[in-house]
Formats: sequence, C-alpha cells, structure tokens
Amino acid sequence: MYRTHTCGELRLSDKQKKVTLSGWIQRSRDLGGMTFVDLRDRYGLTQLVFNMDTDASLCQEVRKLGRECVIQAEGMVAERSNKNPKMPTGDIEIQVKRFSILNSSVTPPFTIEDESDGGDELRMKYRYLDLRRNPLKNNLLLRHQMAYETRSYLNSQEFIEVETPVLIKSTPEGARDFVVPSRVNAGQFYALPQSPQTFKQLLMVAGYDRYMQIVKCFRDEDLRADRQPEFTQIDCEMAFVHQEDILVMFEGMVKHLFKAIKGIEFSSAFPRLTYAKALEKYGNDKPDLRFGMEFVDLTGSAKGKGFSVLDSAAYIGAIVAPGCTEYTRKQIDELTDFVKKPQVGGKGLIYIRMGTDGSVKSSMDKFYTPEDLLAIAAVAGATAGDLVFVMAGDKIPTLKAMSELRLEMGNRLGLRKKNVFRPLWVVDFPLFEWDEETKRFYAMHHPFTSPKPEDVQYIESDPARIRANAYDCVINGAEVGGGSIRIFEEQLQKKMFKTLGFTDEEAKRQFGFLMDAFRYGAPPHGGIAFGLDRLVSIFAGEDSIRDVIAFPKNNAGRDVMADCPAEISEEQLKELSIKVVKL
Amino acid sequence: MYRTHTCGELRLSDKQKKVTLSGWIQRSRDLGGMTFVDLRDRYGLTQLVFNMDTDASLCQEVRKLGRECVIQAEGMVAERSNKNPKMPTGDIEIQVKRFSILNSSVTPPFTIEDESDGGDELRMKYRYLDLRRNPLKNNLLLRHQMAYETRSYLNSQEFIEVETPVLIKSTPEGARDFVVPSRVNAGQFYALPQSPQTFKQLLMVAGYDRYMQIVKCFRDEDLRADRQPEFTQIDCEMAFVHQEDILVMFEGMVKHLFKAIKGIEFSSAFPRLTYAKALEKYGNDKPDLRFGMEFVDLTGSAKGKGFSVLDSAAYIGAIVAPGCTEYTRKQIDELTDFVKKPQVGGKGLIYIRMGTDGSVKSSMDKFYTPEDLLAIAAVAGATAGDLVFVMAGDKIPTLKAMSELRLEMGNRLGLRKKNVFRPLWVVDFPLFEWDEETKRFYAMHHPFTSPKPEDVQYIESDPARIRANAYDCVINGAEVGGGSIRIFEEQLQKKMFKTLGFTDEEAKRQFGFLMDAFRYGAPPHGGIAFGLDRLVSIFAGEDSIRDVIAFPKNNAGRDVMADCPAEISEEQLKELSIKVVKL
Repeated sequence: MYRTHTCGELRLSDKQKKVTLSGWIQRSRDLGGMTFVDLRDRYGLTQLVFNMDTDASLCQEVRKLGRECVIQAEGMVAERSNKNPKMPTGDIEIQVKRFSILNSSVTPPFTIEDESDGGDELRMKYRYLDLRRNPLKNNLLLRHQMAYETRSYLNSQEFIEVETPVLIKSTPEGARDFVVPSRVNAGQFYALPQSPQTFKQLLMVAGYDRYMQIVKCFRDEDLRADRQPEFTQIDCEMAFVHQEDILVMFEGMVKHLFKAIKGIEFSSAFPRLTYAKALEKYGNDKPDLRFGMEFVDLTGSAKGKGFSVLDSAAYIGAIVAPGCTEYTRKQIDELTDFVKKPQVGGKGLIYIRMGTDGSVKSSMDKFYTPEDLLAIAAVAGATAGDLVFVMAGDKIPTLKAMSELRLEMGNRLGLRKKNVFRPLWVVDFPLFEWDEETKRFYAMHHPFTSPKPEDVQYIESDPARIRANAYDCVINGAEVGGGSIRIFEEQLQKKMFKTLGFTDEEAKRQFGFLMDAFRYGAPPHGGIAFGLDRLVSIFAGEDSIRDVIAFPKNNAGRDVMADCPAEISEEQLKELSIKVVKL
Repeated sequence: MYRTHTCGELRLSDKQKKVTLSGWIQRSRDLGGMTFVDLRDRYGLTQLVFNMDTDASLCQEVRKLGRECVIQAEGMVAERSNKNPKMPTGDIEIQVKRFSILNSSVTPPFTIEDESDGGDELRMKYRYLDLRRNPLKNNLLLRHQMAYETRSYLNSQEFIEVETPVLIKSTPEGARDFVVPSRVNAGQFYALPQSPQTFKQLLMVAGYDRYMQIVKCFRDEDLRADRQPEFTQIDCEMAFVHQEDILVMFEGMVKHLFKAIKGIEFSSAFPRLTYAKALEKYGNDKPDLRFGMEFVDLTGSAKGKGFSVLDSAAYIGAIVAPGCTEYTRKQIDELTDFVKKPQVGGKGLIYIRMGTDGSVKSSMDKFYTPEDLLAIAAVAGATAGDLVFVMAGDKIPTLKAMSELRLEMGNRLGLRKKNVFRPLWVVDFPLFEWDEETKRFYAMHHPFTSPKPEDVQYIESDPARIRANAYDCVINGAEVGGGSIRIFEEQLQKKMFKTLGFTDEEAKRQFGFLMDAFRYGAPPHGGIAFGLDRLVSIFAGEDSIRDVIAFPKNNAGRDVMADCPAEISEEQLKELSIKVVKL
C-alpha cells in the first residue's frame, strides 16, 4: 500500500505515530513560515503541515503543487494548536518529513467543492471529477449501503438472488424494447429486459419460493422528467403467499433500510390507502403524506346559489391552507395561474379567506353570503386564519389539478421536508384501464395481475370495476415500489386475455413459454419491484435520480462523457447483417 | 401464507403440532390401506400419510393426483414408525386431515429426479422444470451464497459496489461488442460492455479507492467450449496499491469463500508460480495442482545417442506416471493417439517402463542402453514401477502437448478429484504477445497493464521480454480470476501505445475520455476480475458453467426455451432506423 492510514482515520490517540498518507491536494494555504495542505481521499481530509524553519526546501517544493495533484506524504502525527471541530481528523495534523508526487493534475474545469462552480453539462462531461465531490460521493456510498442492506434483509428471509438473462426475447408489444442484433444468428435480435417479470414467475414455477435480484432494466422511451434508459430494480417474487404476506415482508424491508441507514424507526405499520381513497383525498395514487391538506368533497354541499361554475360541476373540492388568510392578491393570482397551466389543467381557483376576526371573504362573494361561505368552510374543516381553495369541474381532472395545487402549497409552506419520511401502501388498484383512443382495456399493472376474488364475477359484465391484488409502496409522493399477486390458474388467465382483447394465438405468441410453464404445477405467487434509483434519491434527499447514479445518461439518452450512442463502422454493421436506413 | 411450515423444516420435536404444508407431489405410494405422498418444496421433502381406515374418501382423492401437482395439506405431525435417516424430515410424517389442490400439472416431459431421463435439449427447453431438480437447485443456491459471501467479505474491506453502465460506447477494436441501436438517436448505437474496465479505472480517478461490482458482461463471439454470450464477473479495483496488496486482498476473498461455503480452511498462502515456471513445469498458465507429474527438462541430458527424434529436438521433456509400469501396449497406444490428435499436437510419445525388478524397457531401446535409460529416468525422478513419458519437438508446442497428456493421465489415475481444491497465483505474465499474422504486438492483458519497473528499459529494444504486473488466480486447472496493476503515468502509457502500434490519434479515439481523466490526478491503482460462473462451477463440481446459470444460452447463443434471438417486426426495425441485410 502507498499508505499506512487513510485521510479520514487519524485521531489524537495516534499522536507521535509515524504515518504515510496518500491522496489528492484539496487545498493549500501558504502562511509564510508554514504551508498547510489538506490531503483528501474517499475517507476524509487530513491536514499536512510544512515548516520553513524545519525544512525550507520541502516547504518550497510543496508550494508548487496545484489542486488535485496526487501525493504520498510521510510524517508524524501531531496535535493541532488550532483544532477544527468540524473535521473528524480536526484535532491532528501531519508534520511532513518527506513527500513524493504520485501524479500531477492539470487544472480541473470546475472546483471540486461541495458547491461546485461547474454547470450541469460540464460536470456531466467530466463526471469522474464531479464524482470526487462529497455530495455525489456520499450518494454513491449510500446507494452501496442500501443495496447491501437490502440483500442482507432479504437473505435473512431466505430469498435467493438469481441472475436472470439480459439477452432475452423481444415481444410484439415490446415497442420500447432495446434490441440487440445477433452476429451469429444473422437477421435475428435479442431484446434487453424492461423487467425480469417472466423469468421471476418461471422461477416460482421452478419452486425457488423466494427470489430477489438487484438488476438493471431497460426502456427505450422518450426520456421525460427524470427517467434513464437503464435503471435498477430490486426485483422480488414469493410463492405460496397472499397479498398480506407480501406487504408485511416488504414493509419489513423498507423499515430495515430506514433503521439501518438512517436510524429511523417506524414503530407502527405503514398506512394503507385504497386507490379510490387516495384519489378522493389527494387526487393522486402516490400521495405525499408529509403534510395534510386532504381534499374535502363539496359536491353535495356547495351548489344551488346560482354560481354556474359550481352548479354545473360534476365535482367540487376544497383544500384548506392553514394560516394562509394573509395571502396577498398577488400570491393568489400566482396560484390561479399555476392551476390553469395546461399540465395542471384546472379551470380556475376560488378562494375563501377566513379572517382571524371571524370575517370571511371570497372570490364568489357575489353568489354566496358570509353564512353560506362559513358553512362551506366548516364542511371543509377550515377555521379562523385559514385560506380555503375551491376547485370545480369534471371529477378526475379536478382531482388531479387539486393534487398539483396541494403539492405546490406544500412546497410554499415548507411542509415537504427532505428529512421527513412518510411511507404508505396504496392498494386495490383497478385491474384494467380503459383506453379511449384504441377503445380497449389495458392491464393497469400487467396481464398476469390477479383480480380480487370477490370481483372476478364482473370480468365480463363490468371489467372497469374489478379491483386487482396490486399494490404500490409510496414514500413522500413518489412510487418507490409496486407489484401484484399473479394469476396462476389457467382458466382465469384465459378470461383475462379475452378481456384484454388477445386471441388465444396472440397470447400464445406473446407469453408462450410462460403459459406452457403454468401447465406444470404453478404455485400461487406474487411479487414486487422497487426502483432502487428512486429509493436512494429519496433517502439522499435528491430530486433527480441522476444524482445517485455513477454514470447517468442525459435527457436525450446520451452519455456526454463517453459521447455515446455513436455511429459504428460499416464493417461492424456488415458483420451484424444490418444497415442504417437514412430518413 | 399457504403454509405454516416449509417441507424441509419439521422434526420430531414438532410432534403433535397441527401444520399446513404446500408444495409439489414428488411421488406417491399406494400401499392399499395407506397412501404415502412425498411433498416437495425448495427446502426439502416431507412425507404425507393418508389412511383408508381414518378417511377413505380423502385417501381415494389423493390417489388421483399425479406428480408435480401443487397441493396444500393440513394435518398433524406424527412420529414415523419407519424412519428414514437419509431425509432431514425422515423422523416424522404428516397425518393429513384435509388437502386442497392449488394447481394441477400435466405430465412433465422428463422425470424431476436427481438423475433425470431427459436429454439436454429437452431439459433446456423446459428449463423451469429442470430447475426443479436438486442438482440445479443446489447449484443456484450455492451461486447465491457465493455472491452473498463475496459482497460480505468485500464490504468488510471497505469496497463499495458501484453500478457501471450497460449501455456504453463501442470502440473501434470492439469487434465482438454486442451493439444496441438507439431509437431516439437514429443511426447511432450503444454497445454492451465486455467488461467495466474503463469505468472502474475512472472510479479510481474519482477517488473511490475500493470498487467492486458483481456485473454482467457480454461478448458476441463464436461460442467455443463452455462460453456464454452473457457472463458474470466479480469486478474489483483498488487505488494506492501494489501487486502484493491485491494478491493478499483477493486471496483473502477466495479463502473466505472456501471457509464460509465449503468449510475448507487454507492455513498457508496460495502457491505462486511465475508464468515462465508454470509453462516450464506444467506447459500451461493455469496448471492443475491437484496432482504432481511436473515436467522434467531432458533437453540437456537425453541427446547424443543417434536417435534423431531427440537429437533434432529443440526441447525434450518427461513426465512420470507413478506406478504405471504395467500399462498395456493398448493403453500406451491410446495415449500415443491422444497426444497426436490435432488439438493436442504432439508428434509422438516415447515411454520408458521402470520394472519393479529394476529392469527397464523403452520404445527407444534401439538407441539407448538400459544404463542410458536408467540415467534418463533418474533425471526425470522416476523409480521402480513408474512409467516415464518422453516428448520432444519445438518447445512451446511440446510443452502444450505434454500439458494435455499430464491432464489426461490425471483423469485416468483419478487424481483430479472434484472435492479437492488447489488454488494458486500465476504471476509475471509477459506484457506483450507477438502476433505472427499481423506482425505486431498485442497487450496480453490490456493496454493499461503496467510493466514491471525493472523491465521498462526494454520497451523499445525488446518488448517481448517485459514482464507485466499481471496475475491470474487459478483453481484446479481453471483460470478463475485475472488482473493487473494499471499504468497511471501519462508518459509510460504513451510508450505503451507506441509499442502497440497505436498512433496518438487512434489512442485518443479509442480511449479518449480515460486518457483525459488520467490528466487530472490519477492515483496508482490495480484490480482483478473473477469469473463468477466458473468459480461457482468449480465449487459445485460441475464441468459446465451452464449448470450454474439459471437460464443459459446453448452453444449457438440461443435460448431454446424462449426461442431467441428471433426476428423482429418491420415496424420495430423502422422505428430503430435499421434494416436487415440479407446475404
């Protein structure tokens, strides 16, 4: 080793020890008679001290070195006169006797500090330098710990990690599959898995009972918001289980992670909300429970005063912004503009100000008397000093717009704290989603998701009302995991395919070998997959999953450091029996 | 849960407990008054007993069920009158009170027994059934444990697992890269990594100090002997290390695995052989040390008797087959045919029989007196009762043929036992390999491998004699891991590229961003990668890595279960801006 200790290790108890450290020069301060160098490695910073009186040439030598130069330094651990309580090694310094330059560094294009002066693109291009900064380094250490603790928990629960193939078969519905031309089998292609779903179900058929895998998955889609073409799942499946068994097992996993990583203990069970209730109360199937402001349905109580906006609405809802009665006209106008944005889709925003003196003022004063307004506010649960927002319109769009307003208010009121965590389960998802465009039902989760036994009766008469044994794990407004109990009975699966508009042949072509496998004794089974990138980003308090991935792609799916994807040679294309078609 | 216990769990101490088990019917025996059913799950087998006297209809019901049917059975744990000491649950049985069929099974195409009657192709097609058999199940459990223990050891040594990208850039030399057309970036391609080499070196530049990853890698090559297009590496890299630090660290890892998984302790250090010595003694850079039979060089001692085969040979070598003097003419002829096979490449095989009575007999009696022969045998280290094989010819081909002969003799003498493990390090590999066809040097390991400092002086005058800081970990004749100390100095790297015939521009194009990264303070570093598939197969005593992979491809790179690779639709091709070119 080029060192006896790391840069994060030495303490006052090591005083007088002869040590060798290696690392990067973080910064250097020249005080005339002395030079101080902070030496950095993954484990921390240690101050090196060089003294003109003791060894002038050594001191002059070190002054020539720039930031990010890699050196090895030998010396004695000494107590600092000027201790730094903010650094774990802040009680000591190394009186350097000799040092050697292991490697020099040209000047980095941005500063390697917690708050860097580099822009996004520049830092992506020099990702290996950006990764030196503490925030990213700590994120990747956290990610390692979370993956490690996930495996540790699941191993203790008798899960075995099985690697499923990355080179799989593309399915006709796999429009967003990445494909891989085979050189050996000309004209044929593998696909990269969007998830190991089929394989994990096969492992249940094979009797593996409890499967887990932390695994890369791939989706070639237009990269919206915060997506990556490759992402990592904690993928799990269990046999001989009911939904309750899965929820308990994986609530255990999430609790273990919070405890092991953050020292946070959840003493009671995570709340469970049905999909219907989540929509009703939060307009959202992944509600942020760090704050209240639940919706109150006013549809039955606020009509009939001649205000057509409300009178004609299929749905009227309210949320109460506590203590916001002093909001200015400007603030309310801003919020009105916010809800009217196309991506929010609200038609407008009605307010009722609850004065601290018992007065009431509203944008619908013209139609509603103070008593009417107070009555509405009472239903909404508002009290003196609050501001009530009312929105009206078709039900689903209004709920969705209210959800955005609620989250916006949560942000404005500072109620969405990064160090507060509110996990919950959303359950009883609909089995099917109707698509207006193609006039057919789609599986909301996937075609193997099991309906609730009591709802199976509606599979022909009213598929839309069937609830699924499907569940999501949600933390702070983000879906971190989702799964379902699977269908394992052949007859029910056939009905499901029929409802989804598959012919027997299509079902066979698309799911052939899984359907075959089900004929040889498939056990009841179900599973879940957690998005590791998202889960880590929430633990890290980062908004983007890019900040918890070592080498992410940008929004165009490009790696700007390696400059890929890129063209390949004609020779390579020929070997693969393919040709690029220019448009 | 559909069970209170697993099928491997119940013992005599559970007597009288009411339990529910779920699993597959392994077999069923009808003894007239009673029916015994062995119920199987991942954890074991438990005997269910049905009694005609107690419940005739239940008994008749269960008799209808075929193998691999999935049932749930409720009953009482009872002591067996006829205990089976071979089964962990062999002291008990379940007196079944009621059962239900969870799923039926059609008759499997082969028996689900340790020794199946199914052929290779059939078992590959129904892999999910083959995976039910104990040998495969145990292999996958072993694989899980080995991956888990690997992470456990490396985590305790402060390694962090960092996921590197699967969608990377194809390099001009990446002829065996799998490529992935990008839909979003028409005409451009990602490549799948043959290894995360570049990224792990970038992580060292980024200061991550100790990196590990258990990671899929990909190579689109003609699948020789036991290769897979996707394979799994235990990929590791460390900064601020010398070769010795790496060897000690990963010898520790291998020892940990043997201890934790097999209960085998290696009390002393693994032997280390230089590449030169390994060739000299075993004709092989991955020698099987489970047995001796080292080569003895007779070049200096066996010539000059007028036998042109030896007199004209650049190299003469001997191996001693202990106690084999009684080998028949037929056996020796077989071995002669063996060494003459084109893939072995020997010119012929000379023998010297050492009679137990002190006599000596040889196929070169005509040229050598008994005294001559005894002298040669003495040099070879043979004693009475041994059989000495002598081979001669050009040095390298002769050594290689002798290696094959040695391994063959090891097999014939039963010296290559599956439960004996002899790990070693092979070190001091040559830095370069000369290629006669293209008349240039290639990097034996890769272009970033560091030469031994004392050999750098030959980089212009005699590259072939430069030894590398490169090392392989070998167990029982298989290379299970290999790595090197990397070059981290810009000037040395430039010389290396020059020797490899790269222009500056080519080097830049191929390794551009890594070369850039090296300018910003690269620490000294080195690493190693273990082949997890091979390592597990050795622990499992399996000859093929296919037996330790859940869903392997066949020798043509096909998944015969899923039937892929396969053609994709015109629409999909169009979306990807590519076309298949028919030859």
